[in-house]
Amino acid sequence: MSFSLHPRLVSDFHLLGRNGALHVLLQRNAILPWFILVPETAALELFEVPAVLRRELNSVADRLARFVKRHFESDKINVAAIGNIVPQLHLHVIGRRRDDCCWPQAAWGHVEGTRAYSEQEQAILTRALVSEHLLEARNTP
Amino acid sequence: MSFSLHPRLVSDFHLLGRNGALHVLLQRNAILPWFILVPETAALELFEVPAVLRRELNSVADRLARFVKRHFESDKINVAAIGNIVPQLHLHVIGRRRDDCCWPQAAWGHVEGTRAYSEQEQAILTRALVSEHLLEARNTP
Repeated sequence: MSFSLHPRLVSDFHLLGRNGALHVLLQRNAILPWFILVPETAALELFEVPAVLRRELNSVADRLARFVKRHFESDKINVAAIGNIVPQLHLHVIGRRRDDCCWPQAAWGHVEGTRAYSEQEQAILTRALVSEHLLEARNTP
Repeated sequence: MSFSLHPRLVSDFHLLGRNGALHVLLQRNAILPWFILVPETAALELFEVPAVLRRELNSVADRLARFVKRHFESDKINVAAIGNIVPQLHLHVIGRRRDDCCWPQAAWGHVEGTRAYSEQEQAILTRALVSEHLLEARNTP
């Protein structure tokens, strides 16, 4: 199947890598720990995702949520499939804290401020995701 | 297990009834077709929900999403577990249309306008949900 990520996802997110049939992305704005999982499917709604891929998506989303909660000391994990702007099916996994930019509002349309991840932060995060089997290790040339 | 719905859910939503271990609620503001499913659990995060109940939640959420899309002619279904304000675990299933009040924004914090469901609308909707096995028929005295 020919599959490419939606340009809006590519522009707003770091493409961290893959986990099986899922792409693992990290919002470039580090003001909130905001991941998305993009399953390789033409389905636009969660209920249209083939069963095997859906189980994979749920399983990785759950493990990612646990990781985010621990790694970022989040008070609450927000999980959502919205897709009003980017129709390509993607699942948000966002770590929220009572002291973050926009608590207790939902993140969409309420984020204030921007910050970039440093290269070191990205490297630490990527290593942690690989060691948790949330991200496949990439062979560097 | 003693379980009672969070007061905020009771005040903002019609309690339509049950589907097994799930409570099925409908947002009182009819400006968007907005349902929530509340599983009877003390878990606060999706990943903490016991496996059997989680499968039930996913299965009913999928069938409810299909129903909402058809019944309300929605262009997109938004599904989310947020819980920053109401910690009791609840899953939103919202039907969105390109011509609705706040498209393409996410609904949380962006809804404009209010409208109440008429008694007739509620009765039709409840009958449809029962006939789709999304809601248990209630024995009226």
